[in-house]
Amino acid sequence: MTSETTTPELVEQILAEASIAAPLWAATPAADRAVGLVAVADALDAAADELVPLAHDETHIPDGRLRFELGRTTFQLRLFADVLTEGSYLDARIDPADDAWPMGAPRPDLRRVLEPIGPVVVFAASNFPFAFSVAGGDTASALAAGCPVVLKVHPGHPRLSVATARVVRDALASTGAPTGLFALVTGTRAAQDVLTDGRIKAGSFTGSIAGGRALLDIAGSRPEPIPFYAEMGSVNPTFVTRAAAAARPQEIAAGYLESMSMSAGQLCTKPGVLVVPEDSDIPQLLRSSERPAAGQLLNERIQEGYVEVLERLMSHESVVSLTDEEGAYAAPPAPTILLTDVDAVIKDPAALLVECFGPTSLVVTYRDEASLVALAAGLEGQLTATILGEEGDDVHALVRLLATRAGRLLWNQWPTGVSVTYAQQHGGPYPATSVPGSTSVGTAAIDRFLRPVAYQNFPQALLPPALRDDNPERIPRRADGVTSAG
Amino acid sequence: MTSETTTPELVEQILAEASIAAPLWAATPAADRAVGLVAVADALDAAADELVPLAHDETHIPDGRLRFELGRTTFQLRLFADVLTEGSYLDARIDPADDAWPMGAPRPDLRRVLEPIGPVVVFAASNFPFAFSVAGGDTASALAAGCPVVLKVHPGHPRLSVATARVVRDALASTGAPTGLFALVTGTRAAQDVLTDGRIKAGSFTGSIAGGRALLDIAGSRPEPIPFYAEMGSVNPTFVTRAAAAARPQEIAAGYLESMSMSAGQLCTKPGVLVVPEDSDIPQLLRSSERPAAGQLLNERIQEGYVEVLERLMSHESVVSLTDEEGAYAAPPAPTILLTDVDAVIKDPAALLVECFGPTSLVVTYRDEASLVALAAGLEGQLTATILGEEGDDVHALVRLLATRAGRLLWNQWPTGVSVTYAQQHGGPYPATSVPGSTSVGTAAIDRFLRPVAYQNFPQALLPPALRDDNPERIPRRADGVTSAG
Repeated sequence: MTSETTTPELVEQILAEASIAAPLWAATPAADRAVGLVAVADALDAAADELVPLAHDETHIPDGRLRFELGRTTFQLRLFADVLTEGSYLDARIDPADDAWPMGAPRPDLRRVLEPIGPVVVFAASNFPFAFSVAGGDTASALAAGCPVVLKVHPGHPRLSVATARVVRDALASTGAPTGLFALVTGTRAAQDVLTDGRIKAGSFTGSIAGGRALLDIAGSRPEPIPFYAEMGSVNPTFVTRAAAAARPQEIAAGYLESMSMSAGQLCTKPGVLVVPEDSDIPQLLRSSERPAAGQLLNERIQEGYVEVLERLMSHESVVSLTDEEGAYAAPPAPTILLTDVDAVIKDPAALLVECFGPTSLVVTYRDEASLVALAAGLEGQLTATILGEEGDDVHALVRLLATRAGRLLWNQWPTGVSVTYAQQHGGPYPATSVPGSTSVGTAAIDRFLRPVAYQNFPQALLPPALRDDNPERIPRRADGVTSAG
Repeated sequence: MTSETTTPELVEQILAEASIAAPLWAATPAADRAVGLVAVADALDAAADELVPLAHDETHIPDGRLRFELGRTTFQLRLFADVLTEGSYLDARIDPADDAWPMGAPRPDLRRVLEPIGPVVVFAASNFPFAFSVAGGDTASALAAGCPVVLKVHPGHPRLSVATARVVRDALASTGAPTGLFALVTGTRAAQDVLTDGRIKAGSFTGSIAGGRALLDIAGSRPEPIPFYAEMGSVNPTFVTRAAAAARPQEIAAGYLESMSMSAGQLCTKPGVLVVPEDSDIPQLLRSSERPAAGQLLNERIQEGYVEVLERLMSHESVVSLTDEEGAYAAPPAPTILLTDVDAVIKDPAALLVECFGPTSLVVTYRDEASLVALAAGLEGQLTATILGEEGDDVHALVRLLATRAGRLLWNQWPTGVSVTYAQQHGGPYPATSVPGSTSVGTAAIDRFLRPVAYQNFPQALLPPALRDDNPERIPRRADGVTSAG
């Protein structure tokens, strides 16, 4: 482990450089920022044979998954480069002066655009050493937005972090990006010093509820509170209708076992709760299925945390195990499927609807549709909620209810595997995240690091290019309320 | 005063009704919600002769200004009705399934739309008894977004609040809106019970920094923290370039006196600080100008707070008064213009750059452009920042700096008088507001009460109308990243 805490002197230097870089990077044309992002993507792809073995060594994640994840990471950087070039992310609006504006007073010339929020701190996650770490989603969207990034290294993969950061910094420098645009800090104390520093204007985090809430509270108690985007826990409930359970129990059991054990159950969208009719064959099928292979967890701390939560679940009076207890607590742990019923969950949701980060999931049987809806109504905020149903199922009310509880709803697909797209939403009400209006995946993620500025009665030469009459960057804009292409 | 505290039993009933109304109002088609907003606007206009005298009696605001403000309020409701009908506020995005998606894995069918966040609590302001109170901006945007509103009455105009609420409720009911969609609560304790209740999903406030911060901290320390949009203090600095000060000192002095004393200085965008070259005639002109007329402040509490802050400013060792001290502390207070220099402000910004809510403003003289930029760099977050300049002034760096400090920048206009438009931004970094990415005025204000939900692989019949293939409401959408009209 090379995770020495960054010294206070170095933290100060990093913050000073980031605040100098902020106006320079903000003033860099979007097309040039796009060049920087693509350079980082290219350099990371070229460094795959150096980075992937390091990642495997530190996280135990298989080589194939790591290479896929690195590809997703560099795809994401290039997608944000496209977003910059296209320009609608700026939400540029132009209201020409209008003496007849029906408000009762003349409307001045008003133009509004989104601008970078300033230097941000990003707390890397353990479970995606590429896609949610040094050069991951928040780094990509913050750099795209025009913000310097101070990245808190996850202690689970410090050597990979240093190696990745070198690639990122060299690539940015090769395109003429300002010094200080991207830096690493290591250690809790250093990270806290960064988060509480007045030069930092936003933060983000992916990890546990306890960790995220602690940082959220720090961000909120600063003299100047800042937006803090924490992605935390989710049990990602999956509801199986009576018709689906009857029509394709084998398919559902097999899909569930694959999804819940993928990446050794260490995915934030793991289906942690499967809700099935009490008379369905699914529990029996899960009992008799071949148990998915055990996979080594990311590190010892996660193994210990997993065992602790699993022991608590196993010892709950209303829970039985569908899988053999032997091997459940071993390292690597054999996947575990637990069973309870809807009444137990409604009675004690705090104990039963908890994220168990690793290869465990809870099957909950329901009596009737009313109890299923009651269970859904008691849910806290979730990243995802899934319905496995058949055509003709009357689940409209359930869908509407789940839409108030989760950021993404799925129909007849499993929640694991989060696609990076324009329409993706990876977020949800608390405790899934701290900001229900935000996403950490997909092109809309750039919004978290932007803030609007309006210009009233400004001369052309002093306006940002996005707001000038001649629209030099040919971006889509909204003139007098009506959107038009660039 | 009829401001009896709402009882705990009534608070419970209001919250229970709001949470029942939430899914009903969310499911009400946008076009029907628009009808509700227009009905409220029409009913308020029709009730002007009842409401305006009540407002005048409780706030001392002149009749003409109140009628203009009511017109702005009903215009705002109708503008949000237009927003609902047009539909781009939904930011609807459709990504069709794509097996060749270059992320490295097939893209599922993903569709994303903004949905109502749930019941919200709105804390009314004192200084706009219509536009930022019972039927004001936050009520309009929350109802438009599809959210029930629990409105905390401002104690400065309780009878007007009750009368306005009756108009709002009757108008909504006449269009078939659900019971419980809109309710008033009175009293600090009742408001705190509402804000801390788990059924409330967002909050907003307009008022002082101390009041806003206290509520923000309560919202953030809930078991489920919620977005809380507080609009607080701002000194709205106005920078006069050397060339402008030389070219039109009379015009600037006259415009400043009018803007700083408008509505007895009780506007959140009052120019509280005017920065002029030290050799300019403007201070002398302000000294010799006719003093603007005194106007009665909103209520005794505000009069007391005003006098307290003014006394502190007056007794500062670096401050002198350009206006006669006689009458400055009277009720109504004669407008006061204070004078200091840039070095004093840079040395003691916490004491000098404070909002003095009432007819006082501080003139700051600067030596050279470097000291002017140093002053700007030391600013906290502001609602507005203004430059009065001449063609040829090299203020590019100042504009870029101020854009990081304020939500709206103005060129050669005064910040008072906030137009309600598509491109308006009424917000800014802390302490101007608690959420720098949000606005309380203009059509973008609807965003604060919305959150995104993505639907993956969903059958047409279970999708919200905005995401269906046939686009029944003909709204603009973004398909595979490209925006098209409805």
